[in-house]
Amino acid sequence: MVNSLGRELPEFIGGYRVRPYQGLETAESTAVPVQSKRIVERCQAGQSKLLGSLKEALLACGLKDGMTISFHHSFREGDLVVGQVMEAIGELGIKNLRFAPSAVVNLKNFSLAKYVEDGTIIRVEASGIRGELGDHLIDGSVQMDEPAILRPHGARPRAIETGELEIDVAFIAVSASDVYGNCTGQIGTNRCGSLGYSFVDAHNANKVVVITDTLVDYPCCPASISQQYVDYVVKVDQVGDSAKIGAGAARLTKNPRDLMIAQKVVKVIAASRRFVDGFSFQTGAGAISIACTKFLAEEMEKKQVKASFALGGITAAIIDMYDAGLVRVVECSQSFDATAASAILSRPGVLEIDNADYSNAFNKGNFLNHLNFGVLGALEVDTDFNVNLLTSSSGKMMGGLGGGPDVAAGADISIVTLPIVRGRTPSVVDRVFTCCTPGETVACVVTQAGIALNPRHRNYAELREDLERAGIKPVDIQELRRLAEELTGRPEPIKTTQRIVAVVEYRDGTVVDVVREVVF
Amino acid sequence: MVNSLGRELPEFIGGYRVRPYQGLETAESTAVPVQSKRIVERCQAGQSKLLGSLKEALLACGLKDGMTISFHHSFREGDLVVGQVMEAIGELGIKNLRFAPSAVVNLKNFSLAKYVEDGTIIRVEASGIRGELGDHLIDGSVQMDEPAILRPHGARPRAIETGELEIDVAFIAVSASDVYGNCTGQIGTNRCGSLGYSFVDAHNANKVVVITDTLVDYPCCPASISQQYVDYVVKVDQVGDSAKIGAGAARLTKNPRDLMIAQKVVKVIAASRRFVDGFSFQTGAGAISIACTKFLAEEMEKKQVKASFALGGITAAIIDMYDAGLVRVVECSQSFDATAASAILSRPGVLEIDNADYSNAFNKGNFLNHLNFGVLGALEVDTDFNVNLLTSSSGKMMGGLGGGPDVAAGADISIVTLPIVRGRTPSVVDRVFTCCTPGETVACVVTQAGIALNPRHRNYAELREDLERAGIKPVDIQELRRLAEELTGRPEPIKTTQRIVAVVEYRDGTVVDVVREVVF
Repeated sequence: MVNSLGRELPEFIGGYRVRPYQGLETAESTAVPVQSKRIVERCQAGQSKLLGSLKEALLACGLKDGMTISFHHSFREGDLVVGQVMEAIGELGIKNLRFAPSAVVNLKNFSLAKYVEDGTIIRVEASGIRGELGDHLIDGSVQMDEPAILRPHGARPRAIETGELEIDVAFIAVSASDVYGNCTGQIGTNRCGSLGYSFVDAHNANKVVVITDTLVDYPCCPASISQQYVDYVVKVDQVGDSAKIGAGAARLTKNPRDLMIAQKVVKVIAASRRFVDGFSFQTGAGAISIACTKFLAEEMEKKQVKASFALGGITAAIIDMYDAGLVRVVECSQSFDATAASAILSRPGVLEIDNADYSNAFNKGNFLNHLNFGVLGALEVDTDFNVNLLTSSSGKMMGGLGGGPDVAAGADISIVTLPIVRGRTPSVVDRVFTCCTPGETVACVVTQAGIALNPRHRNYAELREDLERAGIKPVDIQELRRLAEELTGRPEPIKTTQRIVAVVEYRDGTVVDVVREVVF
Repeated sequence: MVNSLGRELPEFIGGYRVRPYQGLETAESTAVPVQSKRIVERCQAGQSKLLGSLKEALLACGLKDGMTISFHHSFREGDLVVGQVMEAIGELGIKNLRFAPSAVVNLKNFSLAKYVEDGTIIRVEASGIRGELGDHLIDGSVQMDEPAILRPHGARPRAIETGELEIDVAFIAVSASDVYGNCTGQIGTNRCGSLGYSFVDAHNANKVVVITDTLVDYPCCPASISQQYVDYVVKVDQVGDSAKIGAGAARLTKNPRDLMIAQKVVKVIAASRRFVDGFSFQTGAGAISIACTKFLAEEMEKKQVKASFALGGITAAIIDMYDAGLVRVVECSQSFDATAASAILSRPGVLEIDNADYSNAFNKGNFLNHLNFGVLGALEVDTDFNVNLLTSSSGKMMGGLGGGPDVAAGADISIVTLPIVRGRTPSVVDRVFTCCTPGETVACVVTQAGIALNPRHRNYAELREDLERAGIKPVDIQELRRLAEELTGRPEPIKTTQRIVAVVEYRDGTVVDVVREVVF
């Protein structure tokens, strides 16, 4: 079987039935009633939800072999809850779990791989698998019978609401909670800000355990997630290290190449007819993205153009724009640093939003459907404009899908940014190793060596005209590939076995690609 | 069949199967997964939700004979949306609808009864049926084959989530919305404040139509209900008259009898061991209630006692307490006047809450489970402490269940307030005409003639002791009945036919009583 992106797919991978991606127009619609595993049940007055330990909570939830557990990744590399919960699960000897967080991040002092190796976890579903487990899955040193299912952020709520991903127990780390589960990431010692990823878990899981290091008086105010969705509350010593939230994706750059790319991005935005009062944007949290945000703010000041909203993962740079009156509303599904985490409480126009509201294409409407400009990072892009967000050009597991495929599809002008080479390998290639974002959803690719427009994008003619008027001359994507190869030479193709370790799902649950075990 | 309150019930009423109330301990638990009629569907970017008229919205929703429609009643007697929607339905000739608003209020310039008479509406489910329709149903001048189902506020979300009340189309009146359905009652010309009743409709109805008179730029901020739950948006000339929100229940009083009752209520509260820093209360919006709020504030100032939260329907008097630092958090499921409606936006500790979060006993926990004092109005109370919230002593439909039965069951000390006589009829009686709130959930009855404690209430011993310590001498409820009868004489019993016009459901869907057609 070959999907419309030219990727070869088997019909089944273990027990997983492959529905091949066949383009945006034919993406499956699933007009079925929303499924929930949440139970209509009576919580008697006086019944306590506060338990003494995570182990007690696991027992109270009736966590058993074969169940599905979930987490959010809003603490990013500062998360301390996944490790504590897995340790308690390990001690109880519960096995064969499906591990379904919003993302697997790189946790330095905790080995998730160990729990896969000993059979505690036998399935993984997430937006990406960064770190040790990803490396071990892709090099075959850790194996699972079922492929990991990787879904972009918008696809996770869809999968939960269709019943494809039924969560038995959701573990929600929060910086403050009362004894009844009214909770938030906005106050307390270790704040993560928006709990955007957790709303769908809270609303749909069978059991919900809130984990906090700061118990506040009842009722917790503000309350992002309400008591009506929470079964148990557990206090631990520490849920996360806020300082590390910004440590991974959200770093700043002084790299002149990245700054040059960011400047070109802002030139594209400023040239667009959509760059007018009331426009909207998402810039994200990568090195280039944060530079973009800064340059965009300058451009907006200069041209006296104000945005209606900024969207998605939010950084201090966006909050600065809000404070400067450049952005009317900040729709925050994730807080990428401490400033952004605190801003929801202190600024009436900075709103905490449900990740489904941000990016799910299978609800009655999301913010991405109204987004003018989306700036996206990439590990590789190919001459069909397909984007690789997962694997490096040497075949290592490097990233996560995040909201990349969602933003590309949603934004009127989706701008993929990357340097043409990284180290000794090209990042503009003939064919990306792992296709994550279908090329037809990418409006342009911006590199230090030029801007390539995608003739297959729905707004191609418009963008070409706008750039021309602004005196910006795009280059052919083939030209970028040639330049890259001139610098690095053509690398040896990555060798893989036939063993599929991960499936890359699209927003609608169809398969855009698979990741095969790499022979290093 | 006789339920545990001694009320005679048939096994079936039309197609309605009666599950008799058998006491709090045996109240049915329904541990089934939450049902939803909301659909997993794809809203394409660019797809408009803004329609030109209500009629277009009805057609777009596919509203058909036999379906169920819903509304909120947060505009109370100022509502202008129910009338407009019913007119459009009438013009399209759609019949046999189930009309299921959070409450039927008394609308002066609109006849709901007309739509029952012509078969547009054949079933009614609400917390109460005030006004013309209620009067006509009870006197038999308007008849339906199926009984009206009356549910307290907390029972409605339960019925929706169990699938007992499946809503096909929810019409949600808001004071401001953007074109995509992000909407609120907090800004715009005609504000109703909290949209507390509408969350469960938005989350669970098959189709959701947002109706506003104020379209704001995308994205609407604040957004109480998110675009992800909204199918269509319709702009009309006016959704409601904010000035009339306070006109019905939320009036102030100079009546010395009511003031005396309010003072006695506050004496009970102040005498309680639960009246300490961090206590919680709900006082409501009736004449006596607002006086209570005022006297309670004075008592708190005097004793330097501060509340953790005030709950439920919120009045300006409560906002004054918040501003004075007497209440830390105001959990607002309904705004009873313009001050309360505006307070959510302007005060960080005044929160808009889901009515389910307020009062549903069949979720993972609600605010009522943490309520110390609940002050409740009543039309009649009997010597078993059963409360009538619906029918006057002459048998007329006068009120609604509201959150009465919920608050009584939830509050540690539930205080029912009423004058011992109204006009020429006693309101403390042997047996209430319609039993709405089971006597075992009422801690005490406060009248101008004394305070009666309920020996069957779970906190009886505690309250008796507390009142004794404070030198408050309670009276026997029989004594109050005798006093009332001395003033008015014993009224002739109300004559009814065997025809049942309404069923009074409890929080769990069991039947506490029925309302029979009255022979006037």
